[in-house]
Order: sequence, then structure tokens, then C-alpha cells
Amino acid sequence: MKCKVCKGEAFIKFPAHNAAFCEEHFDAFFIRQVEKAIRRYGMLSPGAGVMVAVSGGKDSLVVADVLSLLGYAVRGLHIDLGIDDNGFSAQSREVSASFFSRRGLPLQVLDLRETFGMSVVEAGRRFPRFCSLCGMTKRYLMNRTAAEAGVEALVTGHNLDDLASALLANVLRWDLRYLAKTLPVLPGENGFARKVKPLALLSEREIAAYAGVHAIQVVTARCPYSTEAKFLRFKRVLNDIEDQSPGTKRRFYEGYVDAAHLFQTSGGVQGGALRPCTVCGMPTSAEVCSFCKTWRGRR
Amino acid sequence: MKCKVCKGEAFIKFPAHNAAFCEEHFDAFFIRQVEKAIRRYGMLSPGAGVMVAVSGGKDSLVVADVLSLLGYAVRGLHIDLGIDDNGFSAQSREVSASFFSRRGLPLQVLDLRETFGMSVVEAGRRFPRFCSLCGMTKRYLMNRTAAEAGVEALVTGHNLDDLASALLANVLRWDLRYLAKTLPVLPGENGFARKVKPLALLSEREIAAYAGVHAIQVVTARCPYSTEAKFLRFKRVLNDIEDQSPGTKRRFYEGYVDAAHLFQTSGGVQGGALRPCTVCGMPTSAEVCSFCKTWRGRR
Repeated sequence: MKCKVCKGEAFIKFPAHNAAFCEEHFDAFFIRQVEKAIRRYGMLSPGAGVMVAVSGGKDSLVVADVLSLLGYAVRGLHIDLGIDDNGFSAQSREVSASFFSRRGLPLQVLDLRETFGMSVVEAGRRFPRFCSLCGMTKRYLMNRTAAEAGVEALVTGHNLDDLASALLANVLRWDLRYLAKTLPVLPGENGFARKVKPLALLSEREIAAYAGVHAIQVVTARCPYSTEAKFLRFKRVLNDIEDQSPGTKRRFYEGYVDAAHLFQTSGGVQGGALRPCTVCGMPTSAEVCSFCKTWRGRR
Repeated sequence: MKCKVCKGEAFIKFPAHNAAFCEEHFDAFFIRQVEKAIRRYGMLSPGAGVMVAVSGGKDSLVVADVLSLLGYAVRGLHIDLGIDDNGFSAQSREVSASFFSRRGLPLQVLDLRETFGMSVVEAGRRFPRFCSLCGMTKRYLMNRTAAEAGVEALVTGHNLDDLASALLANVLRWDLRYLAKTLPVLPGENGFARKVKPLALLSEREIAAYAGVHAIQVVTARCPYSTEAKFLRFKRVLNDIEDQSPGTKRRFYEGYVDAAHLFQTSGGVQGGALRPCTVCGMPTSAEVCSFCKTWRGRR
């Protein structure tokens, strides 16, 4: 197996791109794919200031790495959820902090216990749907912190597998509201931060390879509460199809982005009829938003 | 396992409907599902005259059986393709003729060799994509014969698995033209016959069970040229998802029908800018239609 560029020994093969690469030219290929997504979907202006949501997983660290390399002014936001059971939160925070400090990039850490007096586990105890409470909490804090920081966009590490599997789930239900939102760029509107996903066209395997080549150390502990088998199932389904028809996953997502205007309603992408929360002022469909109900004990 | 209706011994279980049935009540359930699809999608007026496209497979014979039972004036159209290799065409014709004659229903047989001087195998020899030529031929003849017969609709036996797997294939490519056409009813327009699919909400397994209960004899030979592994693959994928979340397949298809107006373009569903073929007058995008090029030697 030879590198497509230099004909040297390849270390990785991508059937979807009908190509194999050595480490050096894989790196160039990977960065080009990120640049392509940024340009094609009008994600960022050159050198823009961005806030990267950092979990400590490969996706968020790789996207921070590449954006910094491409000259964007990267700052990170890490939310310490306070999940102690298997050291998940401590390791996530440690890995994130060490990555950012080694690159001399600023990282803001928001500790739920310090700030709100309880961990996500304690807050979740009263709720049956723990993961959705955790997701809501992270979304709220990322939105608000990005808005306060005045950056051009909030960057997340969502990759092609995340987006394509979410898309498949949404399409199987024809959930039009979500079908309008599985986009690589969401405009800043209705009080929500502008959101961009520079890894939208790159698969988990490609991102893992990039992390490997650059010896990026990522969190190895898994969240002990993670039971999210549903998207995993759709990822598996898409990987099966991909094995037989390389490129399907990417065509599926790219084709969706081209067609997504069909699903757009008049209310905008990030929220229909919303009003400011009477406690915090962030957009909500209720009088008091879910975040304030949960974390500030307001009903 | 008990019948949902009479609590007698059930012979079949449907997780998607959270129900099991004895033979008698399965039969009632099956017929109700066909009536429901006809009513919900406005397929047919009471007692309407219909032409059923009959291959001799379970789907086409079952749909003819149920429609006749429901009081529609059923007539069949069988196309003898002239595929001799394993007796496929002879058996298909024999099974179809015997089913219709036993029920006292009229069946029109259109023999390609008799009418056009060659079988689909001979016509296909010059073409690389044999299956698509065969499909085009059948569609053309069904359209024309139904129009000549003056029936309210051309009925095909497409089932939920056919439609959901085609839909998944179309959605993975975001093929908007096909996404507008995977509907249970296509209006008669631009010279095309009105087409309805009364088995749209019933799965292959349910149809096979109905054929079994009624001892309907179906073709056992498979077309020796059938290599259509692609849709089979999507059927398998959907069945895997269905096993884990019963009802997904049906929700996927029903949700699509509700959303399909989003994919409709101004050209109508069955064809955009078409004109009459200069040889036969049927709608085509070229000067001479593919059918006349193939079967009437016109270029």
C-alpha cells in the first residue's frame, strides 16, 4: 500500500477517498479537509476568534489543534461535570488542561460544583433522563460563555459519524425540527451563539488517526452513565453500508446539507417562538428556562 | 402466545403492532390494514375498476386477492418476459393464470416474444444494465395498458419493505427527484397512469403470512438475472433496526409520506419537462422514447 502523494509506505487507507497516505501526507490531507469544510460552509473568517468546547475526547482536542494551526485565535471551554465514579471528570479536566497549557492556549474551566454547588450527578438525581439534563446543561453554559466571550463562533468537535448517525435517526422519524438543525453551521440567532463544526466531513477513524500521528493524549475513561446505545447503533448501521459502498456516509451528509433548506421553517434554525427566561434572560419556551429550574432551584 | 382479539392460540406475532393473532383475526387485521391505506391516502373510490400488475409473486397475487374481496373490479396484467433459463417466465405465467382463472377474474397476458418478436433477454443483450431495461419495459407496458383499459388506477404490489428500502436508498443519496416519487399514490399526469400501492403499510412477513393462510400458490423460481443486492442490503439494515425498535420501518415510511410535499417540484411527481414520443406518443424526455428505441428498433 503506497501513499497517494509520495508513493512511500502508506500507514492508512481510505476507501471513501480511494486513497492511502503516509503520515506526512495524511496530515496534509486531514488539514485540507478541515479547510475545505470551513470554506465550503462559510464557517469562519480568517484568523477569527473561536471558543472550542473541550471535553478532553479526541474530537475536541483535534479540532482545537487544527484550528490553532490554521491561525484561528483558539480559546477553550471545559465544563467539569463532577462525575467522580471512575475518575471520569478529573481525567477529562486534567487531559484538557494539559493539552491547552502545552500549546500555550487559554482554557476556561467551569466547575459545576464550585459554581452551582452540585455536580451533574447530584442535579440529575431527581430526573429520569440523566443524559438529556447533562446535554442541556452543557449547551446552556457553552452558549452563554461563548456569547460573553464575544467570539465569532462556538466550535464543537462533532464529526461525520456523529452528524450522519444523528441525521439517520432524525430521518427515520422525519423529525423536521431536528432535520433543520443537523447542519455544519448554525447562525447566531434568538440569543443562541453561532455554532460551527469544522470536523463535519471527517470520520472518527480519520480523526483518531490524526490524534495518533500527533500523539495527542485523550481521555480514556468513559462516562459511567453513558448508555446512549441508540446513536451507536445508527453509527454501526452506517458503517456497514459504508463498508460496502465507501463514501456513502459523506455523500449522505453532504447531500443533506444541500437539501436542508427544504426543512427550514420561518422560525429560524435555532429556535422558533422563544422569549427571555425571567431569571437569566437566555432564550426559552417557558417562563423560567430548564437551566435555571435545575441549577438555580427556580420553578 | 394468545390472539389479541379472541384469546385463542395465536399463530403469528407482530412486535410493531404489539399484537399476536390467530389465523381468523390475522386475516381481519390484514384486510383492515389494506383498507386503512386505501382510505388514508385516498387511493380508490368504492368499487373502482383497477388493473393489477401481476408478476406471480406473493405481493401481486395478495393485492389482487384483497382488492377483489373488498369489492373492487380487479383485472390483471401479466407480462411474459420470455426468460427461459430456469423456467422463470413459464412458471410466473402459469401461476398468475391459474390464480386469476380460479377466482374468475380477467387476466390479460402480454407476451413480449409474440408482440415484439424478442424476449427481454434478447432485447437486453446489447445493454449493460439489463435490469433497468426490464424495469423500463414493464413500466411502459403497464402505463400504456392501464391507460387503454380506462381503469381508475394501476395497482402494484409494492410493500412496506420495498418502499422503506427504496426510501432509505434515496435518502442516503438525497435524490430529490426520487424522494418526490416514493409515494403510495402517484397522480395520473403527463400521460402516465395513476398508480396506487395498497400494500404500502404491510411488511413482507405479513404478506407472506396472508398468502400462507389463504394457500395462495406463488412463483418459487427466482429471476436468474436478478443481482439486485442493493435494495436487499437496505432491507436487511431496516430489519436490523426494526428488530431493536419495532415499528421504525412503518413510522419511517408514514413520516415520509407526510413530509413528501417538501420534495415536490413544480414539474409534478411523475415527470418534469416531457413531450410525446414521435413514434408511440407516450411521454418521454427524448425525441423517441427508450421503449420504442429498444422494442421497435427506432433510433
